[in-house]
Amino acid sequence: MSMFQAIELGHRLDKKEYKKREERLKTGLLELQRRLRKSNSTLLVIVAGVEGSGKGKVVSQLNTWLDTRGITTNAYWDESDEERERPHMWRFWRDMPARGSTGIMFGSWYTKPIVEMAFGRSRAVEFEQQMMDINELERVLSEDGVIILKLWYHLSDQAQDKLLQKEGEQGLQSSPWLREHAPLREEFARVSEQAIRHTDQSYAPWHLIEAEDAYYRDIATGEILLESLQHRLDQEASWQKHAQSDPFAQGIDMPDANRSLLDLVDLEQSLDNATYKSELERLQAEASDLAWRARDEGISAVCVFEGWDAGGKGGAIRRLTQAIDARLYQVISVAAPSDEEKARHYLWRFWRQVPRNGRLTLYDRSWYGRVLVERVEGFASHREWFRAYHEINAFEKQLTDANTVVLKFWLHISPQEQLRRFEEREKIAWKKHKITDEDWRNREKWDDYRLAVNEMVERTSSRAAPWVIVPANDKKFARIKVLSQFCQALRKQLEK
Amino acid sequence: MSMFQAIELGHRLDKKEYKKREERLKTGLLELQRRLRKSNSTLLVIVAGVEGSGKGKVVSQLNTWLDTRGITTNAYWDESDEERERPHMWRFWRDMPARGSTGIMFGSWYTKPIVEMAFGRSRAVEFEQQMMDINELERVLSEDGVIILKLWYHLSDQAQDKLLQKEGEQGLQSSPWLREHAPLREEFARVSEQAIRHTDQSYAPWHLIEAEDAYYRDIATGEILLESLQHRLDQEASWQKHAQSDPFAQGIDMPDANRSLLDLVDLEQSLDNATYKSELERLQAEASDLAWRARDEGISAVCVFEGWDAGGKGGAIRRLTQAIDARLYQVISVAAPSDEEKARHYLWRFWRQVPRNGRLTLYDRSWYGRVLVERVEGFASHREWFRAYHEINAFEKQLTDANTVVLKFWLHISPQEQLRRFEEREKIAWKKHKITDEDWRNREKWDDYRLAVNEMVERTSSRAAPWVIVPANDKKFARIKVLSQFCQALRKQLEK
Repeated sequence: MSMFQAIELGHRLDKKEYKKREERLKTGLLELQRRLRKSNSTLLVIVAGVEGSGKGKVVSQLNTWLDTRGITTNAYWDESDEERERPHMWRFWRDMPARGSTGIMFGSWYTKPIVEMAFGRSRAVEFEQQMMDINELERVLSEDGVIILKLWYHLSDQAQDKLLQKEGEQGLQSSPWLREHAPLREEFARVSEQAIRHTDQSYAPWHLIEAEDAYYRDIATGEILLESLQHRLDQEASWQKHAQSDPFAQGIDMPDANRSLLDLVDLEQSLDNATYKSELERLQAEASDLAWRARDEGISAVCVFEGWDAGGKGGAIRRLTQAIDARLYQVISVAAPSDEEKARHYLWRFWRQVPRNGRLTLYDRSWYGRVLVERVEGFASHREWFRAYHEINAFEKQLTDANTVVLKFWLHISPQEQLRRFEEREKIAWKKHKITDEDWRNREKWDDYRLAVNEMVERTSSRAAPWVIVPANDKKFARIKVLSQFCQALRKQLEK
Repeated sequence: MSMFQAIELGHRLDKKEYKKREERLKTGLLELQRRLRKSNSTLLVIVAGVEGSGKGKVVSQLNTWLDTRGITTNAYWDESDEERERPHMWRFWRDMPARGSTGIMFGSWYTKPIVEMAFGRSRAVEFEQQMMDINELERVLSEDGVIILKLWYHLSDQAQDKLLQKEGEQGLQSSPWLREHAPLREEFARVSEQAIRHTDQSYAPWHLIEAEDAYYRDIATGEILLESLQHRLDQEASWQKHAQSDPFAQGIDMPDANRSLLDLVDLEQSLDNATYKSELERLQAEASDLAWRARDEGISAVCVFEGWDAGGKGGAIRRLTQAIDARLYQVISVAAPSDEEKARHYLWRFWRQVPRNGRLTLYDRSWYGRVLVERVEGFASHREWFRAYHEINAFEKQLTDANTVVLKFWLHISPQEQLRRFEEREKIAWKKHKITDEDWRNREKWDDYRLAVNEMVERTSSRAAPWVIVPANDKKFARIKVLSQFCQALRKQLEK
């Protein structure tokens, strides 16, 4: 007995029962939507299933029952150019609904893997890998308060045959792929079953709904929605409390822990003016050439700049952008998140800006804020910033898997040098805007940052997405180091 | 900067500091071990790292500091015959320590994937799959109360060179693979980094320890152990409370939910004596032949028998075992778990009994008890039995991946037929032992079981490991159905 046969039970409702239940549903759903709006949760409904099962009608029905102001419905057809040239998950990530609202996904991250596999265009290992990526993503979202509801609409073979026959007789099309998928019905069932098995997790369970009877199909959908939402909202408070006291999350004081890799950096390194100028010229010319060639090859690059306040991030970035055609790069300065950004997973705002193939994005501060300032200042709970290491690694892996060069620079200066630069800034009028009270406050937490940087590098540096610690007491040395590492990484990728 | 370079900080301790810290450690660890013994948790220490980093000495040191009565140390060398002929994880699963105790794994599920990959004997996709399987396993264990501590001991290239040189000069071997792995040092570092990145989860984090200075190495190990254990034991109570009120776990009352696939079974099906006898003879001959051929081909089979009390499981199993050479099969009757079994994950006792290649194991009741009796009787919390669907699917997938045929039978009878059989059993002396008060009590919960069976089949039946609902009001019909399904499944696998 297949999984799908197990639900072919001939479920149906008569009209009277339907009306009665619908009345109750409408009131209940609207009330829950109100509670959702005030909560920290997000509702994500994934609508999937066989062709002809009425998924479109279900989506319309939900939009009728619910207050449409709180809902975004996204339908996913073929990928656009924009989408094809970014990691597979980008299009979905971009559409992620905000806290308090509901997103309905008509077509989802499941669609392409299943279709490609059913048509025999991808291999079993790729498919499994995709399912694992989905599990990972759904777990990350759940932990961030997204209530994921996955609905699969099923039609028996006989019901599908009946639909096809009707289409033929009436000459009307009821679903765009009903006829195209029909010869591969068995394949689709096999692959779909695997997808569901693989991703049926307690935090994001599948609900299989027999779709032959429209009354039953719609009421089942509504009631699953109602009960899931109610349960999760009831539990929200206790869940959040628990999330903050995760028994897994903890800091461990290692013996000799005060030693940080930053202490080993030789800050005496410097360049004389003449060497600096000639090297700058040579490397900028090379960077320009490499950026054009990367564009031709569809290779993207993401460079992250982190470092001490007054470490010289801006200057290093400018030496890079001076070299490169303005159409090829984008600099993103990360300040406090916008309301729209705060309402979503902290990685969302960075995901949005992932470059298309062949482009370069430079981040002046980045997602690493989660494990630096948010950690040190206590803006994120221990559990939140600790699991960010894993989330960041997974995020960067999606980038490198999509042919993107990922480079991360930490501009390192000594506390003495920072003090010198702060004081200079206060003295020189046109530099004064660059120094704030916050900078002075951060300086007092030098030791906390020092250890946070150490753990960050240890947990997120890798050959595929390395951290480069840049000795930056001498600005000239730092700029040349950044440029040469950039060129080297791009060259290596181009030679692959 | 690679992940490993990030910890090459020259950590060291002098002897005086070592002695001071060791004193404190010993007292603390023994105290924690006492607390662990009384708890519901298990401590699993995974010792991994580069050759020559002193992993063996660390394990000895732990055995000195801790009370050895509560520790099992398992070293993993090459797989034995016994192990090679079962799923890859079997050897580790088998050695899982009991609640309250500590297991030290010297070599682990990481070893083989890393070595195979470094030597270029496996492909990147296989490696990723293995890492995903490990993540899955570690998550299952963590959720079950296992505290997983993963320690990676690192030596810089220079330190490794020094060791090799010393070995050469003294003609003494310090580690069995130091010399063999040396030429592949870069490969090992690259692959190990990937493994660590992939599996560095908040519930089972890696701790990287610089191993050049033995004092530092040992004290770091002890202090990580101490702090992790302390934190987790402190949190145990709140964690367990939370585990029982999982916001994800819930039952959803579907409309028309009272409909179960069991209701659709045609229980009128029966066989006359003559047909039964001829079919029995034919199928038993075929089953015997297939079992021998399966042995030759190294194909195993696992058959699960579940069903209503008095449904005829025993009779059906006997018709199968009559046919097959006794050396080829094993029947396992699942009763209440032993103390040893209760002290571990509920799947442990079934894992232990996984057949070697070419053997057949018949389970009279099985791991499905988790989602049947334990669910209905409330022995497992909602969260526990709900996540069991996923755990069971993952477990069975490991079996089918290892070339094992998995078949699951539900012997279905009507309540009336059950009553008839119960009364018959009470009347006939030699059948009387077969009926207990519990049977009568279970009968009262018929409706709960009916729905539990329905959800079980929906969530765990698949093409690879299907449920077969056997109409069993007529015993003859049921036995033939079981035999013919068995033959069919084995034949299909042999023809692959």
